[in-house]
Amino acid sequence: MTLAPELVVSRWFNTTESLTLAGLRGRPVLLHAFQMLCPGCVAHGTPQTQRAFELFKPSDLQVIGLHTVFEHHAAMTPVSLEAFIHEYRLTFPIGVDEAAEGSPIPTTMQRYGMQGTPTTILIGRGGNIVHHGFGQQSDMALGAIIATELGR
Amino acid sequence: MTLAPELVVSRWFNTTESLTLAGLRGRPVLLHAFQMLCPGCVAHGTPQTQRAFELFKPSDLQVIGLHTVFEHHAAMTPVSLEAFIHEYRLTFPIGVDEAAEGSPIPTTMQRYGMQGTPTTILIGRGGNIVHHGFGQQSDMALGAIIATELGR
Amino acid sequence: MTLAPELVVSRWFNTTESLTLAGLRGRPVLLHAFQMLCPGCVAHGTPQTQRAFELFKPSDLQVIGLHTVFEHHAAMTPVSLEAFIHEYRLTFPIGVDEAAEGSPIPTTMQRYGMQGTPTTILIGRGGNIVHHGFGQQSDMALGAIIATELGR
Amino acid sequence: MTLAPELVVSRWFNTTESLTLAGLRGRPVLLHAFQMLCPGCVAHGTPQTQRAFELFKPSDLQVIGLHTVFEHHAAMTPVSLEAFIHEYRLTFPIGVDEAAEGSPIPTTMQRYGMQGTPTTILIGRGGNIVHHGFGQQSDMALGAIIATELGR
Repeated sequence: MTLAPELVVSRWFNTTESLTLAGLRGRPVLLHAFQMLCPGCVAHGTPQTQRAFELFKPSDLQVIGLHTVFEHHAAMTPVSLEAFIHEYRLTFPIGVDEAAEGSPIPTTMQRYGMQGTPTTILIGRGGNIVHHGFGQQSDMALGAIIATELGR
Repeated sequence: MTLAPELVVSRWFNTTESLTLAGLRGRPVLLHAFQMLCPGCVAHGTPQTQRAFELFKPSDLQVIGLHTVFEHHAAMTPVSLEAFIHEYRLTFPIGVDEAAEGSPIPTTMQRYGMQGTPTTILIGRGGNIVHHGFGQQSDMALGAIIATELGR
Repeated sequence: MTLAPELVVSRWFNTTESLTLAGLRGRPVLLHAFQMLCPGCVAHGTPQTQRAFELFKPSDLQVIGLHTVFEHHAAMTPVSLEAFIHEYRLTFPIGVDEAAEGSPIPTTMQRYGMQGTPTTILIGRGGNIVHHGFGQQSDMALGAIIATELGR
Repeated sequence: MTLAPELVVSRWFNTTESLTLAGLRGRPVLLHAFQMLCPGCVAHGTPQTQRAFELFKPSDLQVIGLHTVFEHHAAMTPVSLEAFIHEYRLTFPIGVDEAAEGSPIPTTMQRYGMQGTPTTILIGRGGNIVHHGFGQQSDMALGAIIATELGR
C-alpha cells in the first residue's frame, strides 16, 4: 500500500477553500493531473473528469484537478488557465501545482512520480493510492474503480 | 425490489450450454437486449456490452446478450444474427428471445416490459433488477453500477 | 482511362426505375459498394454516401448504392437489406448486385475487380473511372473529387 | 461579389515571410479564424484546417490560420499561441490578428464582420469571398467548395 503524498498547490480555482488530502481523509479522492495545452488532456482527460464529477456528486467522492505544468511554463500561467476553465465549463476544484526550485517539474507531480499528462489517480478512503494511470483511461474502468472504492 | 423474470430463449450463440437466471443465482448478470438492425444498438449498445464483458472477465459477472426482435422479423432471423455476431466480433453469450404467439414482441421482452432496444438490465446477486435502462447508457455509470453490485 | 463496366442489378430499392450507367452517361455517378453486415460500411461508408447524396442534391451527381454480397449470402438477402435501408434511413437508390453462377462474388463486383467492402467509386461524365477507393474514405477528399468532376 | 479585405497581422508563425492577400492574388485562400481557447476551434476547426492544408498541398491553395482574440486577451498571448501550435502539431501559416484601438475585436476580424470563432472563409482566385461560414463546417462541403474554386 502506497500512501498518497500531500498536494502542494499555489492557487485554487472553483473552490473558496484550499483542499488537502489530510483534510479529506476518509473520503475517496479522484486526482486528475493535466496541462491546458496537452491535447490528450483536453480531448479526453478533463471532460472525463468533469463527467466523473457530475456522476458521483451524490457520493462523498472528492474530485480534484491539478494543473501540473512541466513544459511551456510561460504559455500556461494561471491567467490562461482561468480562461481555459471558463471556456471548457470545468466546475470541479482545480489547483495549480506549485513550481519547484531548480526543476521544470512542479512539486506534487514530482512527489507522485507522474510520467506526464494526463494522469488519473484514485486515492482511497485510507489515503492510499488505489489507481495511478498515465494516458487515456476507459470511462467504464474508471467508473468501476471509483464505485468499488466508494463501496468500502 | 423487483425479481427478474426468467429468460425464454429459443437458441444460443457463443455458449455450449443454455443459461438461466435460476442457474446463475448468486452472480450478477448484465442483460443486454438488442436487435441486429437497430442503429443505436450497433453503434453503442453491443460494443459497450462487449467492453463490459472484457473488463469484468476477472469477476463473476455474467454478461448475456438477448436478441429481442419485435419488428422486421423476417429480416433478423438466426442465420442473419449469426453472421452479425461473427462480423462484429461479439464473444459474449447471446440468446434469441423466443417468439410469442399472437404478438410481435418476443416472450422475455414482454416479461420485462422493455420499451425497445437497446435495453440494458443489471440483475443483482439476489435475482433482483438493479438497473433497467432504455437507450444509450453512459460507460462510466454502467461501470459504476456493475462494480457496486460486484462488491455486494 | 478505364471505362466503368455496366451495373448488373437484380433488384432496386429507393427508385421506381432501374438505373444504368448507359442511361446516366453525361452525369457523374458515385457508386458505393457495401454489405449490410460489414462494420466499416455501416459505421463509415453508408452514412458518408448518404451525406454525399444530400450535399450534392442540387447538382447532377447520381448516387448509387450497390449491395455486393460476397459472404454470408443467406444472412443478407433482399428482405434483410430492405429492413436495413429503412432502419438506417438511407434514401439514395440502392441496387442488389446480381449473384454470379459458380462464384460467391456477385457480377458487378467481379467486373470492377473490387477488393471488398466498402468500395467507393466515382464515375466521370464520360463514363470513365475517376476514383476507385477500398476502405474508409476521407469526407474532405471525397467532397473534393466529386466537386472536381462536377466542374467538368 | 464581395472583395476580401486585406489581412492585418502583427506576427506570423509557421512562415518566414508575411502573407498578404494582395501577394496571393490569383490563388484561392482558405482563411481559418480561431482562438486557442475556443473549444469548437480546438475540437473541429483547427484539425479540419490542418486536414485541408495536407489534402490540398499539391494544389495552389494557400491555407492561413488567423488568431482572432476577442476575449480573454491576457490568456491568449503569442507566447501561449506558440505553445498551442507546437502541441497541436499545426503546420500551416498562422497570423496573429492585430489588436484594434478601443475595441476588444481585432482588426481583421472587424473588417470581415466575423461573428465569432471558428470562422472559415474561402477567398477566390479573384480576391472575392466565396464562402464565409461561422461555426462547425462539414468536411465534405468544405472539400467541395475548395475543389470547385481550384477548378476555376
